[in-house]
Amino acid sequence: MAGSSFGHLFRITTFGESHGGAVGVVIDGVTPGLELSEADIQKELDRRKGGQNFITTPRQEADEVHIMSGVFEGRTTGTPILLILYNKDARPAAYDDIKDKFRPGHADFTYLKKYGIRDYRGSGRASGRETAGRVAAGAVAKKLLARRGVQIVAYTIRAAGIPCTTFDESVIEQNPLRACDLTAAAAMEARLRQLQEEQDSAGGIVECRVRGLPAGLGEPVFDKLDAELAHAMLSLGAVKGIEFGAGFAAVDMKGSEHNDWMNSNGFITNNAGGIIGGISTGAELIFRIAVKPVSSIAKPQRTINLKGEETEIRTEGRHDTCILPRIVPVVEAMTALVLEDHFKRQAALMA
Amino acid sequence: MAGSSFGHLFRITTFGESHGGAVGVVIDGVTPGLELSEADIQKELDRRKGGQNFITTPRQEADEVHIMSGVFEGRTTGTPILLILYNKDARPAAYDDIKDKFRPGHADFTYLKKYGIRDYRGSGRASGRETAGRVAAGAVAKKLLARRGVQIVAYTIRAAGIPCTTFDESVIEQNPLRACDLTAAAAMEARLRQLQEEQDSAGGIVECRVRGLPAGLGEPVFDKLDAELAHAMLSLGAVKGIEFGAGFAAVDMKGSEHNDWMNSNGFITNNAGGIIGGISTGAELIFRIAVKPVSSIAKPQRTINLKGEETEIRTEGRHDTCILPRIVPVVEAMTALVLEDHFKRQAALMA
Amino acid sequence: MAGSSFGHLFRITTFGESHGGAVGVVIDGVTPGLELSEADIQKELDRRKGGQNFITTPRQEADEVHIMSGVFEGRTTGTPILLILYNKDARPAAYDDIKDKFRPGHADFTYLKKYGIRDYRGSGRASGRETAGRVAAGAVAKKLLARRGVQIVAYTIRAAGIPCTTFDESVIEQNPLRACDLTAAAAMEARLRQLQEEQDSAGGIVECRVRGLPAGLGEPVFDKLDAELAHAMLSLGAVKGIEFGAGFAAVDMKGSEHNDWMNSNGFITNNAGGIIGGISTGAELIFRIAVKPVSSIAKPQRTINLKGEETEIRTEGRHDTCILPRIVPVVEAMTALVLEDHFKRQAALMA
Amino acid sequence: MAGSSFGHLFRITTFGESHGGAVGVVIDGVTPGLELSEADIQKELDRRKGGQNFITTPRQEADEVHIMSGVFEGRTTGTPILLILYNKDARPAAYDDIKDKFRPGHADFTYLKKYGIRDYRGSGRASGRETAGRVAAGAVAKKLLARRGVQIVAYTIRAAGIPCTTFDESVIEQNPLRACDLTAAAAMEARLRQLQEEQDSAGGIVECRVRGLPAGLGEPVFDKLDAELAHAMLSLGAVKGIEFGAGFAAVDMKGSEHNDWMNSNGFITNNAGGIIGGISTGAELIFRIAVKPVSSIAKPQRTINLKGEETEIRTEGRHDTCILPRIVPVVEAMTALVLEDHFKRQAALMA
Repeated sequence: MAGSSFGHLFRITTFGESHGGAVGVVIDGVTPGLELSEADIQKELDRRKGGQNFITTPRQEADEVHIMSGVFEGRTTGTPILLILYNKDARPAAYDDIKDKFRPGHADFTYLKKYGIRDYRGSGRASGRETAGRVAAGAVAKKLLARRGVQIVAYTIRAAGIPCTTFDESVIEQNPLRACDLTAAAAMEARLRQLQEEQDSAGGIVECRVRGLPAGLGEPVFDKLDAELAHAMLSLGAVKGIEFGAGFAAVDMKGSEHNDWMNSNGFITNNAGGIIGGISTGAELIFRIAVKPVSSIAKPQRTINLKGEETEIRTEGRHDTCILPRIVPVVEAMTALVLEDHFKRQAALMA
Repeated sequence: MAGSSFGHLFRITTFGESHGGAVGVVIDGVTPGLELSEADIQKELDRRKGGQNFITTPRQEADEVHIMSGVFEGRTTGTPILLILYNKDARPAAYDDIKDKFRPGHADFTYLKKYGIRDYRGSGRASGRETAGRVAAGAVAKKLLARRGVQIVAYTIRAAGIPCTTFDESVIEQNPLRACDLTAAAAMEARLRQLQEEQDSAGGIVECRVRGLPAGLGEPVFDKLDAELAHAMLSLGAVKGIEFGAGFAAVDMKGSEHNDWMNSNGFITNNAGGIIGGISTGAELIFRIAVKPVSSIAKPQRTINLKGEETEIRTEGRHDTCILPRIVPVVEAMTALVLEDHFKRQAALMA
Repeated sequence: MAGSSFGHLFRITTFGESHGGAVGVVIDGVTPGLELSEADIQKELDRRKGGQNFITTPRQEADEVHIMSGVFEGRTTGTPILLILYNKDARPAAYDDIKDKFRPGHADFTYLKKYGIRDYRGSGRASGRETAGRVAAGAVAKKLLARRGVQIVAYTIRAAGIPCTTFDESVIEQNPLRACDLTAAAAMEARLRQLQEEQDSAGGIVECRVRGLPAGLGEPVFDKLDAELAHAMLSLGAVKGIEFGAGFAAVDMKGSEHNDWMNSNGFITNNAGGIIGGISTGAELIFRIAVKPVSSIAKPQRTINLKGEETEIRTEGRHDTCILPRIVPVVEAMTALVLEDHFKRQAALMA
Repeated sequence: MAGSSFGHLFRITTFGESHGGAVGVVIDGVTPGLELSEADIQKELDRRKGGQNFITTPRQEADEVHIMSGVFEGRTTGTPILLILYNKDARPAAYDDIKDKFRPGHADFTYLKKYGIRDYRGSGRASGRETAGRVAAGAVAKKLLARRGVQIVAYTIRAAGIPCTTFDESVIEQNPLRACDLTAAAAMEARLRQLQEEQDSAGGIVECRVRGLPAGLGEPVFDKLDAELAHAMLSLGAVKGIEFGAGFAAVDMKGSEHNDWMNSNGFITNNAGGIIGGISTGAELIFRIAVKPVSSIAKPQRTINLKGEETEIRTEGRHDTCILPRIVPVVEAMTALVLEDHFKRQAALMA
């Protein structure tokens, strides 16, 4: 109820603050007998971590994952898996100057209003660092989905106002933006360097595709596959919108244009983005999310302090200029969690 | 788990198919002592029902609600409230011609793939008629929210390609589109008549605003207020996207442009749409949803039958040309359900 | 959260007060494709209903069940099944004299303390009538379990101080106590007639056995099979205790006496009652519940009224002298609900 | 769903195997602002740990708890609290001889049947060591309950066949059995030394009382306070039964004897044990649990191996002769978890 758990049958609970002792996740409901090593998880965490290039935070967390339970002799046992990452490069002192002021665009104000107390060190629980637990759990879900023949790929399609105009999946991991278009990626990079000089930041759009998904996943009526994916994506602090298939462009179409006709080979078009009535159609699942620009900027901004007095703030610290390349593995992880959960729900329904 | 329940502490479970015995809802967790009559609920159902004008289905369901439990001497008792609407104007025979074909844009195919069996009469459980239960439950949530000083208003801002350019809340219930701009509404109406002649349909965008919401609602990290609203909205079959505040427009902004600064009066701007870090800021909550064009059109379309053979289909029956005016009360209802649930969750956390 | 739902994957929500419009249940998660008719459910409800003989309440409810959703052409569709029983023989006026007094042993006082309001007509929600919904849902679970080869049988082993000394399953439905020993049943009957003359009531013990259960059901660590069965049984208002296998007698045994040894045919003894570590062993599952004497007695008793003043009360109305024969089908139903849910949970885990 | 979580609003998830990296718990939903230190938790863990005297296992785990999240500057923040205890005195090699045999009375066989794989080292997840996480979480719940004026005390009332005949709360922590009667405790001790020489073990009964509980806690109809306490207690592997108030003795009473009459001071008797209709009455809450004799005994026993062949086994290792004194703090912890959860549920209902 308190919101730190996600999923029903493949269920995760994350814990941890940016500058507390550790962050991580407990996963309950993992199919027993799966081969699982720390390396399987580490490779996904390495895609998420900072310090990879000029775009991302210089904070150097090793983000080394430890499997503390639920795995025996290299295989999952069906019992809860605790994955823990100790915080090492925490510098809480660096946050002393912000403990009395609300950073614009940050959850400082809302956390204080909600809880009456807040851990101000590096955004505490609201830190992007919380997503490390999600990525770790997502790595396990991905392994199970791979056995089912399901592949998930996410990538940047727009950043700092610059759109990708081609789609080449092979280049995604070869450019710092994780964009699907190298030319656009170069332009994005140039624009981001400029923003960094301006002590400013950028947002963009991430697209995600899932292949190999059978028709029939998703639970009418409230736990539609798209409803749960939307829930998952909007649970990321930087995400302000989501659309499936034709998405917002569908609103100006006629029914005759939007409806995906079928022939004996299946769906001819895919305006629905692979989900109709909340259930997978068997076509490629495709959605896009709107990522707001990074809130933490060094540029001076107006705000108030705890007493309600007007003041100025510069968010120093070690921040990303653009979060997109790091959000890509998180999007994949959350998608994997939703899908693995729905496979199990479908199995339960038909049992 | 099977997906027909929504909410945690103010929890609803809907039931019913379009042409079965009844549709409705059980609500568990309603605060005891609330004055509640069938009239309170009926007025919201009347906003949702068909047959109101040329835009909506000519199906004439009285949609008369019956309170069967949980209310004693005009007050809620804190026990489950069953609200039931008997199906009266059901004409299952009208659906005989579609029982062997998959209607494009409909959940016919996906339901069959999921369940291995489907009630084809009027889309069965996938029918928009299922939302009657949601609206009935939402009416109860609205009454509780009114006591908390919270108001919710939804309205059409775009339909059939025509945008509203002004915002006048007083006209919403005075035009068949429930648009916030009478001039635009007239243009939409003309365009819809034309589409109706073409045996086609339209979609659009609904916007929703919530006022009077205190700061501090929403549960980090997975059950953020926006995550749960997104879940709620995407659980509507016709919705293909959602955005909060600046939404997709935020992706091209710089951090310095998007961040909402504060002064001693509160937030100066509201790009966040009233939610930061998943928690309400106390500013107006605002979001928009993308509604796809109605799938059921009389125009002939290509599809396949149960045997996988290619064929043609014309979806006769009694359908809406544009669902927007009827989805408006559903959006308000789902918003009310999410908010009332979060008020209770916050009370539990602080208890 | 508000407590009217039970189960996770085969999930029921009951609703209704004794003298409101109706009682019943919504079941979500039923495997699609199961043949299901009202007759299947009615036969279990008929075992539970009053007016069967001198032991039970003379209230004559037909308890006719109506399937309102989730079944199409005689088969379940996988969508929620609403089962409703309209209240017909309600005589709320008969309860006018008790609306200001707390009946000893009844939930009158606690409901008022909890909710600040109560429906005093026939105990409202606390009425045994609420269990009709459970029995109806249990009938569906039983059909599914029968397909899995699982049989459940419950029966009285002690009533009004008289124990059964033999076990003959064939006589259970042939005596008004549903006892497993005809001689004991005759003695119980005689004793109950005497208690009825004294305007008093009796309790007893019900035993339940499950056969055909495979080894491996139950979810460590909190949702052990026995933990969930205990939850289910103690959710019956009249039940004050439960024990599995050797139960309370196990406390005086040595480990060497209590441990069930195995040979190549399986377990040699069954002190564990078919569950070890919360998981079924494959041996017969066996448990017993303590049922308190019926609270409603015509004999005058001391109590207080709403103002806290001391007074006397005689609970007239139409009450059972001993609830055991009617609780037997409820015990079977609740057992079926727990088991069916665990079959689905096991399927999900291994999926 | 997979069973490692308990509670709804004060929700815990335990993890860990006896001989894995660590055991512990994540608690979500803790009221923010509570003063909390490791010492608060350690004192309860110290009551549970082994090596305290001849009755309990000689395994010497320091059971040192670490708070890894959710506490900032000595106060809870409302975010998840991870409490972790690293396993130090693990000797997996000692279990090599049992990896191919099923220990009588142990969950070896059932875990293997359920999961198809098992961590045989010290019973893995089925180890009593898992309860350390429960006790740690219970310590937090106890602190919150103390603020509400609620006290919980559990103690041994029967062990190795010897009953307590007096009740002196002050002696409970002064004898190795945690019995409420020093004379009985001495007799129990003598009997246990004898059983230890016989390489055998004993069980007994633990009673628990709760004082200061207001009337009105508990959720009709399925989540009755007694139903949830029964669930909690039967989730302990060694517990085979539970009874409330008069319990199994109630079955032979007449209604007129069992009903608790009220006068202007409240309830005159307490046969109900403080719960009627699943809701607390405001009287003392009282229940008893049946604890089976310890399964692990050095005495040779007959069993089978993984191949189904008959063989003999002697459970060496470091085991308790009688688990009662160590189960007492676990019973208190589980009771605290149930009660704190219900306080929050009641707050949510009335919000």
